[in-house]
Amino acid sequence: MINGTNIVASNYAPVDKESFKALDPSTGEYLEGEFQKADTLMVNNALNAASAAFKVYKHIAPVNKAKFLRAIAAEITALGESLINRAVAESGLPVARLTGELGRTTGQLNMFASLVEEGSWVDAVIDTAQPERLPLPKSDIRRMYSPIGPVVVFGASNFPLAFSVAGGDTASALASGCPVIVKAHPAHPGTSAMVGQAISKATKETGMPDGVFSLLFDDGYEIGSALVKHEQTKAVAFTGSYNGGMALIKIAQDRKSIIPVFTEMGSINPVVLLPAILESQAESVAAKYTASITLGAGQFCTNPGLILAIKSAGLDRFLTALGGAIVNIPSATMLTAGIWKNYQSLSANIVAEPTTKLIAKSTAVNTEKVNQSIAAVATVSAKDFIANKKYSEEIFGPWSLVVACDDIAELQNVIESLDGQLTTTVMAEKDELPNHTSILNALAEISGRVILNNVPTGVEVCAAMQHGGPFPATSDSRFTSVGTGAIYRFVRPIAWQDWEDSLLPPELQAANPLKIWRQIDNNLTKD
Amino acid sequence: MINGTNIVASNYAPVDKESFKALDPSTGEYLEGEFQKADTLMVNNALNAASAAFKVYKHIAPVNKAKFLRAIAAEITALGESLINRAVAESGLPVARLTGELGRTTGQLNMFASLVEEGSWVDAVIDTAQPERLPLPKSDIRRMYSPIGPVVVFGASNFPLAFSVAGGDTASALASGCPVIVKAHPAHPGTSAMVGQAISKATKETGMPDGVFSLLFDDGYEIGSALVKHEQTKAVAFTGSYNGGMALIKIAQDRKSIIPVFTEMGSINPVVLLPAILESQAESVAAKYTASITLGAGQFCTNPGLILAIKSAGLDRFLTALGGAIVNIPSATMLTAGIWKNYQSLSANIVAEPTTKLIAKSTAVNTEKVNQSIAAVATVSAKDFIANKKYSEEIFGPWSLVVACDDIAELQNVIESLDGQLTTTVMAEKDELPNHTSILNALAEISGRVILNNVPTGVEVCAAMQHGGPFPATSDSRFTSVGTGAIYRFVRPIAWQDWEDSLLPPELQAANPLKIWRQIDNNLTKD
Repeated sequence: MINGTNIVASNYAPVDKESFKALDPSTGEYLEGEFQKADTLMVNNALNAASAAFKVYKHIAPVNKAKFLRAIAAEITALGESLINRAVAESGLPVARLTGELGRTTGQLNMFASLVEEGSWVDAVIDTAQPERLPLPKSDIRRMYSPIGPVVVFGASNFPLAFSVAGGDTASALASGCPVIVKAHPAHPGTSAMVGQAISKATKETGMPDGVFSLLFDDGYEIGSALVKHEQTKAVAFTGSYNGGMALIKIAQDRKSIIPVFTEMGSINPVVLLPAILESQAESVAAKYTASITLGAGQFCTNPGLILAIKSAGLDRFLTALGGAIVNIPSATMLTAGIWKNYQSLSANIVAEPTTKLIAKSTAVNTEKVNQSIAAVATVSAKDFIANKKYSEEIFGPWSLVVACDDIAELQNVIESLDGQLTTTVMAEKDELPNHTSILNALAEISGRVILNNVPTGVEVCAAMQHGGPFPATSDSRFTSVGTGAIYRFVRPIAWQDWEDSLLPPELQAANPLKIWRQIDNNLTKD
Repeated sequence: MINGTNIVASNYAPVDKESFKALDPSTGEYLEGEFQKADTLMVNNALNAASAAFKVYKHIAPVNKAKFLRAIAAEITALGESLINRAVAESGLPVARLTGELGRTTGQLNMFASLVEEGSWVDAVIDTAQPERLPLPKSDIRRMYSPIGPVVVFGASNFPLAFSVAGGDTASALASGCPVIVKAHPAHPGTSAMVGQAISKATKETGMPDGVFSLLFDDGYEIGSALVKHEQTKAVAFTGSYNGGMALIKIAQDRKSIIPVFTEMGSINPVVLLPAILESQAESVAAKYTASITLGAGQFCTNPGLILAIKSAGLDRFLTALGGAIVNIPSATMLTAGIWKNYQSLSANIVAEPTTKLIAKSTAVNTEKVNQSIAAVATVSAKDFIANKKYSEEIFGPWSLVVACDDIAELQNVIESLDGQLTTTVMAEKDELPNHTSILNALAEISGRVILNNVPTGVEVCAAMQHGGPFPATSDSRFTSVGTGAIYRFVRPIAWQDWEDSLLPPELQAANPLKIWRQIDNNLTKD
């Protein structure tokens, strides 16, 4: 039995109001559980509790914050199959994918636990005093990152675990020392409730202040909007569509105080196939990309939605192989009826453009289920691509568009016509790369991650990962939402000048009690 | 003879249009020189040139970027007395102050030269491949900071050298690899022209692409607005008033693409005087603060505009000493007639509030000059302060308001009623500090820099400095505009995945040819 009660400050906050139910996207039928719609009083209570908790939580020792994060991971792991089963039912994603995603989710929590435990992430910088300096003495100044305050996290539809209630945004915000208020995604409220309850349990087990976590349900826009507007909210993290992200940004622009709003709004992730690799490996590249385009019904931010190549026999072979494989890709349940409808209509619209040539469309459709994605690939000339802005809009699903260019200069023009992207990729023979540095530079210029001879899907969670690119891929290219770097979204530097050593945060004390890396008078040291 | 021609891409861009003249604020009379008003075609040309230059400039070796920055410093130094004299005439600031500011300006340029030459600032993070990992192999991922593109810098009125044409914003943006377009402040166009010409010379001397630098004049709002709106602009840096900063933010909110807009919008820089130090050192604290309040006619972002203390005999002595000193502070020329008018009217308005008690007002007024600041201090009760929002608004000039609190709880309430600040300060005897951690935490919560037993004026330019605080002190508390950290405003991380070693930026190549600090598989190393 799933408890669909809102959680305010780690406790149930029942309210006698409307509720909504979850849908199984593969059947279109209701699933078990009633989810209570939150109200604005709860928003207020959650943020007041978060602000109060912040004053305590930010001073809790790193080792205890790490215990909290690990306890969340353990509580989620303890949910085991029941969580996976519910997530499968709500998302239509397969068991294997969600089992992997659960591992990623707990892995992220444990990764941030290790990061805060080690402690050097605070980027401590110390400039010692020079009392004898002329004409003026130099003060002792010590700076480190500190958390900014309550963070509102929006669950993403396409990662019901890894980018939802206890996903990367929540893990990085809690690690930084910020309380979190999650707005559950209405496509997987049951999964959200189970994970939210796990977090609440971990809060109490490890003695954290209750206000560090709240979870609110709503199947409309009212609660999300109220959370972004609330003056106690100090940052917002969102992963979803361009329209959704821009709506939140517009709401935030009307606030009295300016706060960072991180929206990851998707991408078409251009892939350049250079001539030599097409000549030598057209078929294996096609096989690799068939898998990447259709992985998870194409519902990844880093799905390769655009492939650029120069007209050639190699490209013809690539298209033949790609089309031949796509036609047999089994349909899959999409995350929601809305996403399915959008995919249907956007792909149909592009195919209907007179300048589009459909290469292939899957015929392996499961007619016993609803909301089934039909993989498809099409081609267009570079001139037509550049002339029609529609071609560079994201089509979320198992879709890719191949742009056939006359020559490398035209291919470069296509790249330069593109907006910001999460990723760009080059498929190339090693020998041909040095002849194309101008293409390589243009790809780096528009994206956050540039990949060689691999696929953009599959985002490694690690210190070097950058998941974030120039607008409109994200609202702020200077940050990543995946990997340890994600913590820096929710912190600001504070400098202490001429401060009493015993009253400094331990990270800045003379004796370096936490044994972290620090920059002292421009030298990195653990002393 | 000062050449008031706009500079587009390091070359003069004459235009047959209106011009304006500079004023000497101490006389109200025109100074030598005609400054041509830029037009929107020049804005477009400057940004197109900057975008083109960016593609070249960002790949220029760090050692050559350092040469460029040092050449700018050398060209500015070569201007010598003529530059100082012009800045004195345009700003009303004394020679000694501007001589110091010139040293700070060239010092900043040289500091950023050293930073980019050393190279570790790019924060290189490398996660090496694990091809054998199960269930999936791990890619090699390497990340570092890269410049974001053309940066628009607004010269600040109160630092005609250190926060103007070749100030901290320009130095950090050029160091990061971004071209810069400066909108000259109309209060010191001659100083701006001389420095702009020095930068253009340095651009040519060191073989940088011309488009890395442009300087545009306008005594209205049209050019500034066009610069912020331009789609090629990738970031904006501004230091000035709340109204000015918010106007730029509103303009940027109407852009198609979202860009970072850094506005530093002033602060009242609260200072808490704890009881024991008032008892033991009321007079010396008053002397220290008289100097800080009136330094540079109080025209510093970090001017201590608010002093909080508990009612006591010590506070009475402090007020007596402060008032006695303020009354004799000689008047000084303010930066512009507009700033003088604002100071006059805002201070008069506050004094006219029935709940305000004027402590002292300078009587040492120079009647031979105009726009003379008259130092003043007043007092108000904590209850009246909290009840009237006017009391917490900045009054830019040699002014400070002392809030007399009944007890420490009321003092804490006053702190918690305040908006974000650049700095907060505590004056205390060492022994009393541990009893007031709640006050200390509240001060850190609202500010970017917390100071003990010193004054907030005088911002050290160093690695540990944080000049930036919660809104509305700045638009983004996560960055600093002073010190080496200022470079991070203008960069974004890019990750290279499975990339060919020889085609990686040198900072990420296996051999570490630049010998910088890097984090490799979670270990910091210079290997």
